[in-house]
Amino acid sequence: MSCVLTPLSLSYAASKQPVDLVYPYLDSANSRWFFFDSASLPFGMVNLNPDTEIGGAWGSGYRYHSNDIKGISHVHAWQLSGLSVMPLSSTRPVAEIKNDYYSPFSHDSEIVKPGYHKFSLDRYKIDVELTATTRVGFHRYHYAPNAPQQVLFNLGGKLGPSELGHAEANQVAPNAVAGYITNLPTYRRTRPTKVYYYAEFDKDIARLDSYRGEHVFPAVSGINGLDAGLLIELSHDAKPLLMKVGISYVSVENAKANIDAELSTWHFDKTKEAALTEWNTWLEKITVKGGSEQQQRRFYTDLWHALQGRRIISDANGQYVDQTGIDPVIKQLPLNEKGVPLFNHHNSDSFWGAQWTIATLWPLVYPSVASDFTNSLLTYYKDGSMIPRGPSGGNYTYVMTGASSTPFIVSNYMKGIRDFDVETAYNGLTYNHSDKGIMAKAGYEHYTKTGGGMRHYLEKGYIPFPLPPEESSYGNHRRGPGQTLENAYQDFTLAQFANALGKENDYQYFLKRSQNYRNVFDPESGFMRPRNVDGTWQTPFDPYQYENGFVESNPAQGTWFVPHDIKGLAELMGGEAVLIERLDRDFLVAEKQGFTSGTAHADETIESLRRAPINYGNQPSMQTAFIFSAAGAPWKTQKWSRRVVDAVYSHLSPERGYNGDEDQGLMGALAVLMKIGLFQLTGGVEQDPIYYIGSPIFDEITLSLDNDYFTGKQFTIKTLDNGPDNVFVESATLNGEPLNRAYLLHSEITNGGELVLQMSSTPNPSWR
Amino acid sequence: MSCVLTPLSLSYAASKQPVDLVYPYLDSANSRWFFFDSASLPFGMVNLNPDTEIGGAWGSGYRYHSNDIKGISHVHAWQLSGLSVMPLSSTRPVAEIKNDYYSPFSHDSEIVKPGYHKFSLDRYKIDVELTATTRVGFHRYHYAPNAPQQVLFNLGGKLGPSELGHAEANQVAPNAVAGYITNLPTYRRTRPTKVYYYAEFDKDIARLDSYRGEHVFPAVSGINGLDAGLLIELSHDAKPLLMKVGISYVSVENAKANIDAELSTWHFDKTKEAALTEWNTWLEKITVKGGSEQQQRRFYTDLWHALQGRRIISDANGQYVDQTGIDPVIKQLPLNEKGVPLFNHHNSDSFWGAQWTIATLWPLVYPSVASDFTNSLLTYYKDGSMIPRGPSGGNYTYVMTGASSTPFIVSNYMKGIRDFDVETAYNGLTYNHSDKGIMAKAGYEHYTKTGGGMRHYLEKGYIPFPLPPEESSYGNHRRGPGQTLENAYQDFTLAQFANALGKENDYQYFLKRSQNYRNVFDPESGFMRPRNVDGTWQTPFDPYQYENGFVESNPAQGTWFVPHDIKGLAELMGGEAVLIERLDRDFLVAEKQGFTSGTAHADETIESLRRAPINYGNQPSMQTAFIFSAAGAPWKTQKWSRRVVDAVYSHLSPERGYNGDEDQGLMGALAVLMKIGLFQLTGGVEQDPIYYIGSPIFDEITLSLDNDYFTGKQFTIKTLDNGPDNVFVESATLNGEPLNRAYLLHSEITNGGELVLQMSSTPNPSWR
Repeated sequence: MSCVLTPLSLSYAASKQPVDLVYPYLDSANSRWFFFDSASLPFGMVNLNPDTEIGGAWGSGYRYHSNDIKGISHVHAWQLSGLSVMPLSSTRPVAEIKNDYYSPFSHDSEIVKPGYHKFSLDRYKIDVELTATTRVGFHRYHYAPNAPQQVLFNLGGKLGPSELGHAEANQVAPNAVAGYITNLPTYRRTRPTKVYYYAEFDKDIARLDSYRGEHVFPAVSGINGLDAGLLIELSHDAKPLLMKVGISYVSVENAKANIDAELSTWHFDKTKEAALTEWNTWLEKITVKGGSEQQQRRFYTDLWHALQGRRIISDANGQYVDQTGIDPVIKQLPLNEKGVPLFNHHNSDSFWGAQWTIATLWPLVYPSVASDFTNSLLTYYKDGSMIPRGPSGGNYTYVMTGASSTPFIVSNYMKGIRDFDVETAYNGLTYNHSDKGIMAKAGYEHYTKTGGGMRHYLEKGYIPFPLPPEESSYGNHRRGPGQTLENAYQDFTLAQFANALGKENDYQYFLKRSQNYRNVFDPESGFMRPRNVDGTWQTPFDPYQYENGFVESNPAQGTWFVPHDIKGLAELMGGEAVLIERLDRDFLVAEKQGFTSGTAHADETIESLRRAPINYGNQPSMQTAFIFSAAGAPWKTQKWSRRVVDAVYSHLSPERGYNGDEDQGLMGALAVLMKIGLFQLTGGVEQDPIYYIGSPIFDEITLSLDNDYFTGKQFTIKTLDNGPDNVFVESATLNGEPLNRAYLLHSEITNGGELVLQMSSTPNPSWR
Repeated sequence: MSCVLTPLSLSYAASKQPVDLVYPYLDSANSRWFFFDSASLPFGMVNLNPDTEIGGAWGSGYRYHSNDIKGISHVHAWQLSGLSVMPLSSTRPVAEIKNDYYSPFSHDSEIVKPGYHKFSLDRYKIDVELTATTRVGFHRYHYAPNAPQQVLFNLGGKLGPSELGHAEANQVAPNAVAGYITNLPTYRRTRPTKVYYYAEFDKDIARLDSYRGEHVFPAVSGINGLDAGLLIELSHDAKPLLMKVGISYVSVENAKANIDAELSTWHFDKTKEAALTEWNTWLEKITVKGGSEQQQRRFYTDLWHALQGRRIISDANGQYVDQTGIDPVIKQLPLNEKGVPLFNHHNSDSFWGAQWTIATLWPLVYPSVASDFTNSLLTYYKDGSMIPRGPSGGNYTYVMTGASSTPFIVSNYMKGIRDFDVETAYNGLTYNHSDKGIMAKAGYEHYTKTGGGMRHYLEKGYIPFPLPPEESSYGNHRRGPGQTLENAYQDFTLAQFANALGKENDYQYFLKRSQNYRNVFDPESGFMRPRNVDGTWQTPFDPYQYENGFVESNPAQGTWFVPHDIKGLAELMGGEAVLIERLDRDFLVAEKQGFTSGTAHADETIESLRRAPINYGNQPSMQTAFIFSAAGAPWKTQKWSRRVVDAVYSHLSPERGYNGDEDQGLMGALAVLMKIGLFQLTGGVEQDPIYYIGSPIFDEITLSLDNDYFTGKQFTIKTLDNGPDNVFVESATLNGEPLNRAYLLHSEITNGGELVLQMSSTPNPSWR
């Protein structure tokens, strides 16, 4: 264990609320575009923060060790960026300013909280404060006395994942400009996506200068085109400048309507307080006692990460843009009797790996979020005939592989979250598992007719690796054995749904398909192994070769991907004892490099680091510590899950955080679940799904239950004699009665109650 | 006179219809993007022809002396291009083909007619035939026996005036692909404009390969993105391949609906015949007898040019795209009781100079076209608050200067073409002449707040040259004295409209403004001359310096731009005799270089060529020969107009045509009017407007009158003893009665009748 755990003082615990414990700097030295957050609300359309790097989807956004603020932008989403603005005070000509306006800043004077960000632009001597509502960024700029009060809108260039295309900007009121920027297509999001803005000041605009490319247009009413921008000079007075920027993917009108709906006043401090309070309300759904201050701070930072990233794209009035067809179409979400949308529509990175992370955390602690996302996914199905696995810009991206939304939706249903059209969902999922659906699309296969190898899966029960050249000349992640395992697991989850809905034929059909994992297990090597189109095994075979048939992993890691049938996997390996021993050995090896392939996603490109049997820095190994529980050795789960938490998810610095790719809440949610000691190996898709009990790191953990969905008020997990060495469960009681099994049923939690775990420094193999 | 006129044989006249006389190659060695036409109907949305040059708005399209066909494209319009396709037969890989597919061709085997084009692609041994309906391109490809039957859709790159942006292409039926291309903004048309296509084959698609940039996507269902394309291979049989390509600015659905409405069959030959017949029907509205074969051929070529270029942008169902706001909005033109649109909406280069060309020709010979365009212009007004002077992509371009649509609309009203909302038109025109309207926008002033110098015009009665730097740092054609003259003339035309509508105050106001031309006349130099902001004259002053205060002209040429008040101009110059003598001298000088500044628009950049007092290769001098008539010396009009026709508008070769910029029918219409000897110096804006009688070049000219608008059946102009030397009118009769004036009233023509001119080799100064 590489971090020092210090006991949390009583005074500390008493004075701090969850929102105060969040450490937004975590891992920000390794930020990718959408990772860092400050001025935003949960899942907010707007997440406003300064960018210190803007060139690309990776290595961009707020990067802790970059010295210059290069703009303050409103959207940091999967494959999307929003309006970038920069306050400044300059008497230089526009032609110069537009090419040279970045400002150094320092962390010394900076304040970063969930919902608030303050920093100083040293070059211009401007103190900047930022907060937000869901769809509106709120700026307060304290200029130096008598300095020009200017704001630059740079509407072109590169901004995170997107090259920006055609932009529009027009003065629409004495104190407002409005227009849009265009996110040009990316390899993943293949259609242009407009982000509309309505920017309103509390002072009148004194002068507007604009530019397009190298051409300057002085004293204008607006600008449009490529690489365009505006320099706005406000009428001068001594007060700080306030600016509200409403964002919409639909229209300027909606961007303004979002301001009207969410931020009709000019009270910056109240808005900031409301943002902090909102975050606190969300975060305190889980309260913890005990552990060190660092553990608590990190825990709430993890939880905070699990509640953002997958951002709202529908407006306050429920309008959104469907881009599944060749032209954008404005559509309307259903409204309740008061005219409020029944749910929000979302942009989202992949659900690949979600079964072990947000798909467990959200339904349990934030069931309304699980409902929201389910309805959002089904909206895509209605619009574009497929349930997506990572939609962006109102369309499919085909990021990663498989039908990764299936476990999430089935799990929600099994947990009693059923306020969606169940029959539609079932139809969408079965379509998704067909040769027409998303399971027949490997990574970014936007145009394929051959279907990501799916025809082989349907014909032969496995997907070859490599595919014949005519089937695999573009796209990504065509990793046959890995896809086979993923499909088989997802087929299992769909089988459970079929079973619950009484669709017996489908149940049998998908259950049979769920055994396809066996077709890529090579008894000779003992690994899941690539097979050729003709059925022969890949020779020679290196089980530690990265991406050798396995998506962002190696065969050794992939071999553990049978979460739905550990018994079956054990049989293939020679019995549960063999499996346990082998997995134990893998953990011992993995521990030597800290259970990850380096400390950042980019490290996975280093060959020596990625020859690991387990990598807790990315999705494919997330479940491994809990396989022991399913194989009858929960004490090994307790041991290894705790060691993984300590080694991988306990740091609290800009440099160390998730040791890989946090992926929009996935790693945050995983860390939360491991730290509260609840994990669902199958993703929770059985009737009354089970949660394996791990090794909670706190003395007391209380989940507040959402009574719109569940009957209990709260569920508490107490650990007695917990400590860095006392990681093993000696015995347990549930509501005062002895609990002689290492798992809980969903209903046992959601009906409310108390689990008490007696912790010990030695394993108790008889508690299982 | 530089061309040899040969008498037209009787047999020739008997056998040829007007459509057969058109010589589409005219001036095609100097083509700009939208100049050349073959497979198109009058004002057709689709004008399908092969492109031999594709790089830029100038020097592109079908250029006679370029050797390679670089694609066959569907739209050659003002600031717009459409889908480019290329039939080919190749077994090379797509990655090679996409970078190297042009084919040489030869004029030897080529046939070009209005509505039809045939040529051979030597590289692929494919005979290509093209024809069209208004909105559908119809292709017939005769491949070599057993050769692959392929068509390449190159959806990216540069195509004429536009860089192409994001494109979409999807197979939508076994025999069809559909999608759109995007015309990225230009300096003039500042918003992206999509052109949708629906391409249907008479054979099934066997295979589709695609590319995006350097990346090839084999065996796909479609493609999208930047620099993308499709290689379509058709199922093979021995028959030629037919392809119908419907075009729309609205949607793929409308592109298909345009096919359904206009070209539901697969009869290529019938469609071709229908196109030729359609053209003939239009062209024979003016029939001529006498003159040489070359004169007749050139005449119908001129007339043909006057009937295209300003293209339809609304669909068969009357839908169009309004792009005057920041987002495209699909709108609907009004329909008659049968669901047919009451008019078409149009894309159009400027109406700058239209008062002497199409605004005279159309109302007289094609009043329904004049009505169509008036209603189209008013549709822009309803959509975007201004009547445009050269709209493209559903929006204003602010090409050139002034409110150049005013004379056109007023002239239509005065000529009895009133099937438009007159009050709306009047409101639109008065707005246009205000400091908010299009008169307050110099060239391409999309973003101005200062208004093209208009505030000076309103305050001081003239626009200075140069404008103060803060008012003139972007845009174009800010040529104060030239704009002053143009505004004053247009104010005169609006005054006439006000008078006709009984708006006395407005009449007086605009009539007063129409005298503003006096404010830029410098009595000392005798020229219209730039004035500084403080009212002083430009010093030193060079009246022959190109663009010295005058748009695409020089002060000497600009000095003649007072078409509405020749008497006033004469007074300023010292009387009519002085004016006549001076203009006569200018003509003598101009004649030495053929009345033009070179033989192509590009020549105007040559300093020595543009120091001319008169240039019949561009709009600013178009009226000069008829100033004599207004000054009481019609015999000089007869002389010089005839010499200009012979020198400037009589050639019949690819190399010589309009000796400048034909500008979408303007020069064609001017040539027609001069050749039939009818010209309106004021643009025909008085009550019962007058036509000055020039020197018709044919023995007999018959106008068929449109009885939807006019009472007469036809009006015939006969010239007796006409000939190359007999260019003067000795005497005239109208309907058998002596006509002792050198002009006709509009009603005298449109009531039908016969004008007989006795021609002579010597002037008759008493006929005036």
